[in-house]
Amino acid sequence: MSFPSSLSFTSETSSAGVREQLFSLGELPGVLWTPAGAAGTRPLVLMGHGGGQHKKAPDIVTRAHRFVTECGYAVVAVDVPAHGDRPKVEEYDRLAAENQARVAAGAELAPLVAEFQAMVARRTVPEWRAVLDAVQRLGHVGTGPVGYWGVCLGCGLGVPFVAAEARVRAAVLGLGGALASAEAAARITVPVEFLVQWDDERVPRADGLALFDALGSTEKTLHANPGPHGGIPAYELDSAVRFFARHLG
Amino acid sequence: MSFPSSLSFTSETSSAGVREQLFSLGELPGVLWTPAGAAGTRPLVLMGHGGGQHKKAPDIVTRAHRFVTECGYAVVAVDVPAHGDRPKVEEYDRLAAENQARVAAGAELAPLVAEFQAMVARRTVPEWRAVLDAVQRLGHVGTGPVGYWGVCLGCGLGVPFVAAEARVRAAVLGLGGALASAEAAARITVPVEFLVQWDDERVPRADGLALFDALGSTEKTLHANPGPHGGIPAYELDSAVRFFARHLG
Repeated sequence: MSFPSSLSFTSETSSAGVREQLFSLGELPGVLWTPAGAAGTRPLVLMGHGGGQHKKAPDIVTRAHRFVTECGYAVVAVDVPAHGDRPKVEEYDRLAAENQARVAAGAELAPLVAEFQAMVARRTVPEWRAVLDAVQRLGHVGTGPVGYWGVCLGCGLGVPFVAAEARVRAAVLGLGGALASAEAAARITVPVEFLVQWDDERVPRADGLALFDALGSTEKTLHANPGPHGGIPAYELDSAVRFFARHLG
Repeated sequence: MSFPSSLSFTSETSSAGVREQLFSLGELPGVLWTPAGAAGTRPLVLMGHGGGQHKKAPDIVTRAHRFVTECGYAVVAVDVPAHGDRPKVEEYDRLAAENQARVAAGAELAPLVAEFQAMVARRTVPEWRAVLDAVQRLGHVGTGPVGYWGVCLGCGLGVPFVAAEARVRAAVLGLGGALASAEAAARITVPVEFLVQWDDERVPRADGLALFDALGSTEKTLHANPGPHGGIPAYELDSAVRFFARHLG
């Protein structure tokens, strides 16, 4: 798949000091947040949304506003295939149905999810690299250091992305296991803040710890908190802001 | 053992905005740091030093200065029995020699250390409670909320202290295992930030994770970083400052 070299902007709004531009890059729908009125080069954070969510899910927007207003960064997110404004993918639907049947028949969920995410990542890694190319050509973004934030599906897709993309200088990952991505994780060398929910009902604790263990980074921090998959405490966003500030400037 | 109700101050210095007062409370030698010129009630952090260290070990002083200058807290530390300015304890020496012989004969080190720390804690818990009583009677400390910071030996002694002492409202613990203190850990209900060194050569990783797991607190965060027992990264002190600021005010 090839992508046009520049974004087509479809709408623009501004609120609370944050400029939000919806765009498409070929078939990819995306959103770019920057400080209102800002010009010139700045760090850029790419965010991968969770499974069943989309580029403007409330938690993605909340996080983007923090990174823009507190750090002056640009933040970009695009819909993952078969999510948000993108069309269904027949192959994914077929696989999801098959997996559901396998789990009903007693198969373990986690390895199936990991395999599925690895397959989706083969599409999203080149998509996200094309997004970086195009966004960094904009005058109000430029070619500054890049960060990545993604948990759950955003971790399953983020691990191979961060491993492949040398522009990424720091990543927040988590709520994911080592099953499909240990090999890619071992190739990651940038600082990582890795989130584990101690009582995660979807990702077995040992799988999450194993993915943290597999990361090749010299500087990596595991932050584990009690509670379910969806229960990351608010203070972890404060921590992510400081983590990126430390590594992206 | 009973203690006098007030401290005897033996010396006082001031540097970089921090007032340092050496004191004794009966046979206990201690040190109190407060903001220079400060009066009135403020949060108090008690710090437990590591094995073989003392109340004014460099990392204890560094941490105390941060808590005083950035948060305006009072910070207190006393020597653990057989450490710093305190006399040797024959029973400890005998046990240490016995344990050394057991390890040489193939015994595991961790359970012996845990047992030893549990024994020392039977002395330090009442000592530290008496220190809180006396320090909180001072006009420039008062009866504000109390925090505890201690890793390694400071965790082995800190877990039973925090479990026993209702004045403690938040604790940073770590580099310790669940072997001797799981039962006390389960009685802790205040927020805890818990540090694990992923490659700790003294505390097996599983023991550290088990102690975090055993903590009864609803709010607890595990921070794990690569590296050996003594290699806690500097950014964890930044995190501890913010953790106490969040919980002690």
